[in-house]
Amino acid sequence: MQSCIFCKIVGGEIPSAKVYETDKVLAFLDISPVSKGHALVIPRQHFATAMDVPDELLQEIIVVVKKVAKAVMEATGAGGVNLALSNHEIAGQTVPHAHFHVIPRHAGDGLRHWPQGKYAEGEMKGYAEKIKAQL
Amino acid sequence: MQSCIFCKIVGGEIPSAKVYETDKVLAFLDISPVSKGHALVIPRQHFATAMDVPDELLQEIIVVVKKVAKAVMEATGAGGVNLALSNHEIAGQTVPHAHFHVIPRHAGDGLRHWPQGKYAEGEMKGYAEKIKAQL
Repeated sequence: MQSCIFCKIVGGEIPSAKVYETDKVLAFLDISPVSKGHALVIPRQHFATAMDVPDELLQEIIVVVKKVAKAVMEATGAGGVNLALSNHEIAGQTVPHAHFHVIPRHAGDGLRHWPQGKYAEGEMKGYAEKIKAQL
Repeated sequence: MQSCIFCKIVGGEIPSAKVYETDKVLAFLDISPVSKGHALVIPRQHFATAMDVPDELLQEIIVVVKKVAKAVMEATGAGGVNLALSNHEIAGQTVPHAHFHVIPRHAGDGLRHWPQGKYAEGEMKGYAEKIKAQL
């Protein structure tokens, strides 16, 4: 897509710090890292969200994500790694080209996970039924 | 694994609100949801982290994650969805059985993404080199 910054990175119009690539998948460093070594894994072809990526390509991507996650941990000496993919702006997706974040984690890095809530009695079952009805 | 709560869910020893299953993969609702409809997708077999899951199984999981993400969005009327997988305790993994979170998002839900930093001049290239050396 002409206006897409990740398509421009794929096309070489915008430089990037590539770490791994295949015919269909590219991994490079996020220029605004949550922690140093934070990598992004994207399909070369433009798809807005993970749900738009064909299954076979998504399967190629996840194997690259796994490989890159291991390498990022080794290279940064991280004790853990978060894999994350935000779909749609409301979920924090800032570039509308599906991308997996690979974020190395270190003790005391201060990154906080989202607070978890509770269901009222019987409410969880209702949600499960509504979701199952879509599957 | 005997002491693993997700293995007990797989084995039916602990009840869960299942939403989807295949021979190798199970999707059910998180009992402490970040937002209602928050689902987890796990391999039936015990693997500690995503990096421990064999590629082929991880590929089966990601297709289920995509399918469940669509269904969760439809069922909850969410405008977005976050997919996330935390590896190791330091990354916020509380159950040591690899699991994808599928978290529906709504406008004004107050969930904040992690702050992003910057690299010093030349520093990003150094990180890319270190990561490439592990790939």
